[in-house]
Amino acid sequence: MRKRKKITSIIPKMPSRFAKKKGKAPGTITYMGRRENLESVVNILEYNENELNVHAPANIEEIVAHKGPPMISWIDIVGLSDEAFIEKVGKRFGLNSLVMEDIVNTHQRPKIDEYEPHIFAVFKMLYINENGELIGEHVALVLLENCVLVFQELEDDVFTGVRDRVSKMDGRIRSRGADYLFFALLDAVVDNYFAVLEYLNDKIEVLEEAIYADPSPEVAQKIQELKKEVLRVRRWIYPVKELVSRLIDTDHPLIAKETKVFLRDVLDHAIEVNESIQIYREMSMSLMEMYMSNMSNKMNEVMKVLTIMASIFIPLTFIAGIYGMNFDHMPELHYENGYYVVWGVMIALIIGMMIYFRRKHWI
Amino acid sequence: MRKRKKITSIIPKMPSRFAKKKGKAPGTITYMGRRENLESVVNILEYNENELNVHAPANIEEIVAHKGPPMISWIDIVGLSDEAFIEKVGKRFGLNSLVMEDIVNTHQRPKIDEYEPHIFAVFKMLYINENGELIGEHVALVLLENCVLVFQELEDDVFTGVRDRVSKMDGRIRSRGADYLFFALLDAVVDNYFAVLEYLNDKIEVLEEAIYADPSPEVAQKIQELKKEVLRVRRWIYPVKELVSRLIDTDHPLIAKETKVFLRDVLDHAIEVNESIQIYREMSMSLMEMYMSNMSNKMNEVMKVLTIMASIFIPLTFIAGIYGMNFDHMPELHYENGYYVVWGVMIALIIGMMIYFRRKHWI
Amino acid sequence: MRKRKKITSIIPKMPSRFAKKKGKAPGTITYMGRRENLESVVNILEYNENELNVHAPANIEEIVAHKGPPMISWIDIVGLSDEAFIEKVGKRFGLNSLVMEDIVNTHQRPKIDEYEPHIFAVFKMLYINENGELIGEHVALVLLENCVLVFQELEDDVFTGVRDRVSKMDGRIRSRGADYLFFALLDAVVDNYFAVLEYLNDKIEVLEEAIYADPSPEVAQKIQELKKEVLRVRRWIYPVKELVSRLIDTDHPLIAKETKVFLRDVLDHAIEVNESIQIYREMSMSLMEMYMSNMSNKMNEVMKVLTIMASIFIPLTFIAGIYGMNFDHMPELHYENGYYVVWGVMIALIIGMMIYFRRKHWI
Amino acid sequence: MRKRKKITSIIPKMPSRFAKKKGKAPGTITYMGRRENLESVVNILEYNENELNVHAPANIEEIVAHKGPPMISWIDIVGLSDEAFIEKVGKRFGLNSLVMEDIVNTHQRPKIDEYEPHIFAVFKMLYINENGELIGEHVALVLLENCVLVFQELEDDVFTGVRDRVSKMDGRIRSRGADYLFFALLDAVVDNYFAVLEYLNDKIEVLEEAIYADPSPEVAQKIQELKKEVLRVRRWIYPVKELVSRLIDTDHPLIAKETKVFLRDVLDHAIEVNESIQIYREMSMSLMEMYMSNMSNKMNEVMKVLTIMASIFIPLTFIAGIYGMNFDHMPELHYENGYYVVWGVMIALIIGMMIYFRRKHWI
Amino acid sequence: MRKRKKITSIIPKMPSRFAKKKGKAPGTITYMGRRENLESVVNILEYNENELNVHAPANIEEIVAHKGPPMISWIDIVGLSDEAFIEKVGKRFGLNSLVMEDIVNTHQRPKIDEYEPHIFAVFKMLYINENGELIGEHVALVLLENCVLVFQELEDDVFTGVRDRVSKMDGRIRSRGADYLFFALLDAVVDNYFAVLEYLNDKIEVLEEAIYADPSPEVAQKIQELKKEVLRVRRWIYPVKELVSRLIDTDHPLIAKETKVFLRDVLDHAIEVNESIQIYREMSMSLMEMYMSNMSNKMNEVMKVLTIMASIFIPLTFIAGIYGMNFDHMPELHYENGYYVVWGVMIALIIGMMIYFRRKHWI
Repeated sequence: MRKRKKITSIIPKMPSRFAKKKGKAPGTITYMGRRENLESVVNILEYNENELNVHAPANIEEIVAHKGPPMISWIDIVGLSDEAFIEKVGKRFGLNSLVMEDIVNTHQRPKIDEYEPHIFAVFKMLYINENGELIGEHVALVLLENCVLVFQELEDDVFTGVRDRVSKMDGRIRSRGADYLFFALLDAVVDNYFAVLEYLNDKIEVLEEAIYADPSPEVAQKIQELKKEVLRVRRWIYPVKELVSRLIDTDHPLIAKETKVFLRDVLDHAIEVNESIQIYREMSMSLMEMYMSNMSNKMNEVMKVLTIMASIFIPLTFIAGIYGMNFDHMPELHYENGYYVVWGVMIALIIGMMIYFRRKHWI
Repeated sequence: MRKRKKITSIIPKMPSRFAKKKGKAPGTITYMGRRENLESVVNILEYNENELNVHAPANIEEIVAHKGPPMISWIDIVGLSDEAFIEKVGKRFGLNSLVMEDIVNTHQRPKIDEYEPHIFAVFKMLYINENGELIGEHVALVLLENCVLVFQELEDDVFTGVRDRVSKMDGRIRSRGADYLFFALLDAVVDNYFAVLEYLNDKIEVLEEAIYADPSPEVAQKIQELKKEVLRVRRWIYPVKELVSRLIDTDHPLIAKETKVFLRDVLDHAIEVNESIQIYREMSMSLMEMYMSNMSNKMNEVMKVLTIMASIFIPLTFIAGIYGMNFDHMPELHYENGYYVVWGVMIALIIGMMIYFRRKHWI
Repeated sequence: MRKRKKITSIIPKMPSRFAKKKGKAPGTITYMGRRENLESVVNILEYNENELNVHAPANIEEIVAHKGPPMISWIDIVGLSDEAFIEKVGKRFGLNSLVMEDIVNTHQRPKIDEYEPHIFAVFKMLYINENGELIGEHVALVLLENCVLVFQELEDDVFTGVRDRVSKMDGRIRSRGADYLFFALLDAVVDNYFAVLEYLNDKIEVLEEAIYADPSPEVAQKIQELKKEVLRVRRWIYPVKELVSRLIDTDHPLIAKETKVFLRDVLDHAIEVNESIQIYREMSMSLMEMYMSNMSNKMNEVMKVLTIMASIFIPLTFIAGIYGMNFDHMPELHYENGYYVVWGVMIALIIGMMIYFRRKHWI
Repeated sequence: MRKRKKITSIIPKMPSRFAKKKGKAPGTITYMGRRENLESVVNILEYNENELNVHAPANIEEIVAHKGPPMISWIDIVGLSDEAFIEKVGKRFGLNSLVMEDIVNTHQRPKIDEYEPHIFAVFKMLYINENGELIGEHVALVLLENCVLVFQELEDDVFTGVRDRVSKMDGRIRSRGADYLFFALLDAVVDNYFAVLEYLNDKIEVLEEAIYADPSPEVAQKIQELKKEVLRVRRWIYPVKELVSRLIDTDHPLIAKETKVFLRDVLDHAIEVNESIQIYREMSMSLMEMYMSNMSNKMNEVMKVLTIMASIFIPLTFIAGIYGMNFDHMPELHYENGYYVVWGVMIALIIGMMIYFRRKHWI
Repeated sequence: MRKRKKITSIIPKMPSRFAKKKGKAPGTITYMGRRENLESVVNILEYNENELNVHAPANIEEIVAHKGPPMISWIDIVGLSDEAFIEKVGKRFGLNSLVMEDIVNTHQRPKIDEYEPHIFAVFKMLYINENGELIGEHVALVLLENCVLVFQELEDDVFTGVRDRVSKMDGRIRSRGADYLFFALLDAVVDNYFAVLEYLNDKIEVLEEAIYADPSPEVAQKIQELKKEVLRVRRWIYPVKELVSRLIDTDHPLIAKETKVFLRDVLDHAIEVNESIQIYREMSMSLMEMYMSNMSNKMNEVMKVLTIMASIFIPLTFIAGIYGMNFDHMPELHYENGYYVVWGVMIALIIGMMIYFRRKHWI
C-alpha cells in the first residue's frame, strides 16, 4: 500500500573528494563535479564603447591573445572536467595554484579572495532547469585588468540578460570597465536567487495543500526533503552576503569606487534573500507540525466512528443476548408484546445515544 | 465535512520581479507592486511659520516649481505604476537612478541611503484597511533641502495626523525644518506599528478562544496563517530599527542635531515594536502546542467513552451468551430464580465497573 | 463539563495609546495608564546628616520651594493621570518635553536618558499585591542636583525600606548625596525582582503538582498563561541590565564615582535576575512537554483497560456463541459434562490471558 | 498506582533573601545559606619553602597575627552563619563592605572583583556528597599579600589535594607565592566540575535505560528533574569562564605573570566544562523525546493486540450468531455436516486473518 | 520481543581523569587514554630537497640527535601511555610542562598555544577504522625549528598521504620548511573530517530508510545514538576553526608568510566542515520527527482496521442477536423467507459500510 520513492540525499556526497584528493598536495587541481570527461568550451566577448567582437578560440594561444587591454574581454569557459586545460589557462593568466584548485572544486564554499593582480570569487549559480529541478551550478569569476574570466560547470547559466546588455550598443555596461562586468555577473546570480525562493515557496504551498487533502506518509517524506533542500540552499546562499560585503570594503585597485554603489545594491538583495530563506526554513519546519496536527485530527475522526458504532451496538447486542437466554422461567418471553417492547427500548437507546453524541459534537 | 478556504501565500510572490527585471540593467526603474496602470496623483503642502499653501500640480513643471527654498514643501506622490512619470520626477529632483529603482520596487527591504544632496529611506507603512486586512504599503521618503518627497503605493496612509499638525498655525512642526517633517512622517509610520501589534494580539486571542471551543482543522490552519503573518510583519518591521539608528548616527548636513533627540524617541519605539513582535512570534508558536494538547484531550475523552461502554457491556454480553447455549445439561437454566440471579449478577457488575471508573476519575 | 475562565491577554493592550496619541505631536504629554482621573499626591522627604523634614505640599509653589540645595529632597509624586499637573511640575523643574511624555507613558520600555541638568530613568516596579497578583507599576526617576523626583502610577511601591533607612539618623544614606538616594531606589526595585522570581517559581511548582494530579485542559491553559507571564516579566526586566550598565559607564557630573561601586552591585543583581528569568522560561516551556507526556500516559492506561477487557471477553463470547447455535447435529451439546468442559476451557482462557498481560506489565 | 515522590524545586528558593534583606542598606552583611547558628571554624596553614605550620586560632587576634609576610598563610574559615565574626574578620583584614556582603550571600552569582589591596572571587564548589547528592557549596576566596582567605559554607570541600601538595616539602606550590595558592584552589574547584559532569552523565544513562525498560510517569518526572538540575549546574558553572578570563587579563600586582600561564590552563578546562554542560543540556532535552517515542511504541503495541483480537473474534461471533437465530426455515441448520462446515469456515477465517496480520508485521 | 543492545555512552567517561589526577599538581603528566601500558614507538623522517632518511631510533639520545638543523625532521611518537618516556622527550626538546600534560591528556579540547621556542597544537584526528567505527584519536603537534614532533595515541593515522609526498623527490613539500610540514599534517587531518561527514551522511540515510521500512523502538534508539555522535563530532571539530584562525593571525617567527596562504585554505575547509556538521545536526534532529510522524501513521492504520472490522461486524452481530431471542411472539421468525431477508439486509449493510469507508479513503 505504501509505495515510496527512494530518498536520495540532497547534500552532495563527498566520496569523490575523499577518494580523489586523498594524499595529493594542497593546490593540486582536481575536478570534483558531475560532468566528467568533457572538453571545455570557450567563448570570448570583447567589447568597448564602439566595438563588439565574439570569438570561439580554437586553442589556448587564441584565448590568451584576448587577455586584457585595450578592449574589455569576457572569457567564458564552460566545463571544468578537463583539469589539464584549466591548469594551462590558469598558468597563462597568472593565477595562483590555490585559485585553480578552487575553480574545479565544486564543493568549495562561496568565497572571495584578493590577490595582487586579480580578484577571485567562487559561488553557486542557482536556477531551475527545464525538468523543474533545482540546480546549484559551480561558477568561478576572476577579475583581471580589462578582463573577466568565467569558469562554469554546465552550459546553462543565468547570464543571458548580461549578454544581451553587452550586445546592445547603448547599454551602460559598454561604457564601463571590467569591474562593472564583474558586478553585473554577480548581480545576475543574486537576482536569480529570487527565482529559487519562488520555487521553494511553490513547493511549500503544494505541500500545505497536500497536508490537508491527504496526510499520507509520502507527504511527510516530501516535507523532510523540502527541509533538506532549504538547508542546502541556505548553505549555498548564506556566504554570498559576506562575499559581496568584502568586495565593497576592499581597496583593491581593480574595483572602481563608482562600481561600489552598485555592489551595495547587490548586498541589499543578498541580505533580502538570506532573510527570506530564513523564513522559508521556519515555514518548512512548521509544515511538519501541521502534518502532525492533521494526523491527530484524522485519528480522532477514526476513533469517533469506532466509539459511536461500539457505544450504540454493544449495549443493543447485550439486550438481544438477554432474551436469547434459555432459562425456563423468563416471564418477559411470554408477554404478548414483549418483542415489540424490546424493539422500543432499543430504538429509544439508539436515539438517546445519538443525542448524547450530537451534544458532544461528535456527529 | 472539512471544507477549507484556499491558503494563499502571505509571503509576496516574486514572479513579476523575476519575469520583469530579468536581463534589465541594474538601476532600471521597474514597478513591481499591485496597482498597475494607474496615473500618479501629486499633492503639495507648502508651509512656513506664517503661511500654508496646498497645491495639486497639473504637470511636472509645477511640481518642480515648489521644490525647496524658501518655504518647506511636502510633495506627496501617490501611485507608483507610472514608471515614466516617476523617472521624470526623479531626474528633475536630481535623484540617483538606484534610488529611483528602489522607489518603485515594492519588494525592497526597508533601508536608508545617504547621498550628497539627499537622504533616501524606503520602508513599509503597515495599517489595517477598512476590510480588516493587514496592508503593507510600500513608501519611500526623500529628504532634500527644504523639501520632503513622499512616494506611496496607495491612497491610504498613516499621515493624517501629520497633515493635521501641519495645518495648524501654532504646531511645533510649522516652525521647524524639512528634517523635522521627515522625522514626523517616520514617527507616524512607527507609531502605527503598534496598531498592527494590537491586530495580531486580537488574532491570537480569538484563536486561543477557538482552540478551547472547538479545535477543528480550520483552527490549525488559521494558526499556521497567523505564524506566517507574524513572520511577514517581523520581516517588514525588523530593519526599521537599524534604519532609524543609522539616521541618528549620520552627520549628513540635512539632519539638524535638534531633530536627533526626536529620532532617538522613534528608535525607542522601533525597539519596543521589535521586542513585541518577538513575543507574538513565541506566542503564535505556542498556539500550535495548545492546539495539540487540546486534540489529545479530546481523543482521551473519546477513548474513555469507548472503554467505559465496552468494558461494561462486553462482559455482560458474555454472561448472556453463556445462558444462551443449548447444552442438554445446564442445571442453572432450570432453577426457579436462575434468570433473576443472572440479572442480579449483571447489575452488580455494572455497579462495580462504575465505581472502578469513578475512582479513576473517568466519569 | 469543560468550564473555563476567560483568558485575558497578559500583554497590555494598546488601543488607548493608538486612539489617544494618533495625530498628536511627539512630546505631547498623554497618560496611558490604568488609573484615570485621579489627582496626584505629592510627598517630600527633605534631609541632611542632621535634619529630616516631611512635607505634604499643597500646591506647585511649595513643591518647587523644596527643590534642591542645601538639603537633599526626595519628591514623590503618586498618580500620573493629571497630565496638566505633571506638565507644570516638569516645566518648573526644567525637564525636557520628551522626558515628560515618557513619565506618563506607561507603555514606555525601561530606559535611561542623560540630559545636561538631569538624569532620567523609567522602568517597571514589579511586586505582588495583596490579591496575589503580579503588578508591573510604571515608575520614573529624575535625578537633579540634590533632588530626586519620583513619579509613580499607584500608591503601592517597594520603597518602604529606603524610607525607613532615610528616617534613621545614623544610616549611611543620610550622609550621602542625591545620587546615592537615586541608587538606593533603583536597588530596591531590582531587589524586589527576586520576589517576582519566587512568585513565578511557586506558580511553576503548583503547575507541576497539578500536571501529575490531574492533567485537565485547565492545566494546559494555565501553563500557557504562565508562559505569557514569564514573557511579559522578561520584557520588563531585561532592559534594566543595560540601563544600570549605562549608568555605570556615564561620566555625568551628578553621579559620584563612589556611588558607581554600589551600582556595580545592582548590575550583578540585574544580571542574576535575567539569568533566572531565562531559566524560568525554559522551565515553563518544558511544563507543556510534561503535560503532553502525562496525557499520553493517561491515554495508554485507558487503552490498556479497553484492550484487556476486549481481549478476554470477546473470545469467550465467541465460544458461548458457538454453543448457542441451533444446528441439528452438534454432538458436544449432548455430552453429559459438555457444559462444564466449556466453563473449564473459558476459565483456562481467562487465566492464560491474565498471565499474558501480566508478562507485558499491563496489569 | 502511580505513587510519586514530592518534587522539590531545585532552583534555590529566595524567601530568606527577600525577607531578611528587605529594607537593609546595601553592604549589610546578611548570611543567606542553609547552615544557620553555627560558629565558624578557622584553620591556618602557614608555609614557605622550608617551614610548615598548622594553627587552629582561638580568637580573631590569633588569626590576624598570621596575616601575611614573611610566610604564606592559607586561612580557611568554615561556616558563614556567624555574621558578626565574619564582619570582624573582614574589618581586620581591610575588606570592602560589599565584599563582606557577597561572602555571606550564598545566592551571589560567581564573579571576581579587584580592589586595590586585594582580589576577591566568589563561586560555587560543586561536588557529590556521601549520599550521592549534588552539592553546590558557596565559597569565597580573597587574595591578599602573602595570604589567601578562604570562606566556605560547609566542612566538605575539594581542597584535599591542594592541602596534600602544600604539606609535601618538595611540591612546586611551596616555592611559589600566594597567587599560586589562589590559582591552585581555583584549579581544584574547576577540576572537580568534571566529576559533576560524570554524575550528570551517569544520570542520563540510567534514565535512558529506564525509558526503554519501563516508560512510567515517574521516568518522565525524573527527566524533568534532570533538566532542571542541568540548568542549575550550568548557571553555577557558566560565569566561571569569564571569572578566570578576567583574572588572566588583569594587571593587578598581586597576580604574577608566571601564574597566568597556569590560569590559562584553568580557562581551557572551564571552556571544556561549559561545552560539555551544553551537550548534556541537549541530551537531557532529547530524553523527553525518547520517552514520548517509546510511549507511542507502547500505545501502538496495545492497539495492535486489541485490533488483532477484535478483528479475529468479532466476525466469528457474528457467524455463530447467525446460526443461533431461531428462524423456522434455516436449511443449513438441518444439514448433516452443517456444524462442521461452520467450524471449517471459522478456522479458515482465523488462518486468513493471521496471514494478513503477519504480512502487516503486526505479529 | 524488544531486544536491545546496551547503549554505551558516546561521551567519553571521565572517571580516570578524576581519579588519576585528583590532588596532583597542575602540569603533572598523566596519561588518560585508552591504550595503557604500551611502549611508545618512534619513527623519524629526515629530509631536505636532495636527501631522505628514515630512522627508528633505539633510545632518547638517538631521537634528540635528529632534532633540527640542517635537515627537516618529522619525529613521530606513537603511544602516549609511557608517561616517563614522554616526559623525557619533552624535557630534551625543551617543552613546557603544561604542554607535556596536554600531550598525554586525551580529554584536552583542541587548542593551539604559542611559546617562544615552539608552537603547540592538540586536536582530534577523526577517521573510520576497519570495523566501521568512528575513532577520535588524540594527536599533538609541536613545531620547532626545522622539526615537527607528532604525538599520536594509536598506530592508525591519516598521514599516509603526507608520508608519500615527503617520500617523492620532486614534491613541493621537500623544498619547504618545517612549517609547511606542520601545515600539511593539519591539512590532512581537516581533509579527513570530510570522510567523517560522509560517514554521518550514510548513517542518516540508512536511518531514513529504516524509519519508513519499520519504525521499531530500535530505530528510535539509533536516532538518539546518532544525535549524540553528531554532538560529539561537533565538539571535536568545532574548535579547530579557531585554532587554524589563530595560526594565521600569529606573527610567530616559525610560521613563514608563504605558509599562511595555505593555512587560509585549511581554514576554508574547517569552516565548511563546521557548517556541514551543523546541517547534520538539524537533520539528525528532524529524524526523530519523521519517526514520530511514521509512528502516528502506523497507529492510524491499526485504528482504521479495528474501526472497519468493528463497525461492520458489531451491527451485524446485533441483528443476528435479535433473531436469536426466544420471545414467543416474533412474527419474522415464521416468515417463509425471513432468514433470506435478514441475510439480504446484512449484505446491504456490509456494502453500505464499505462504500462509506471507501469515501473516507480508509480502504
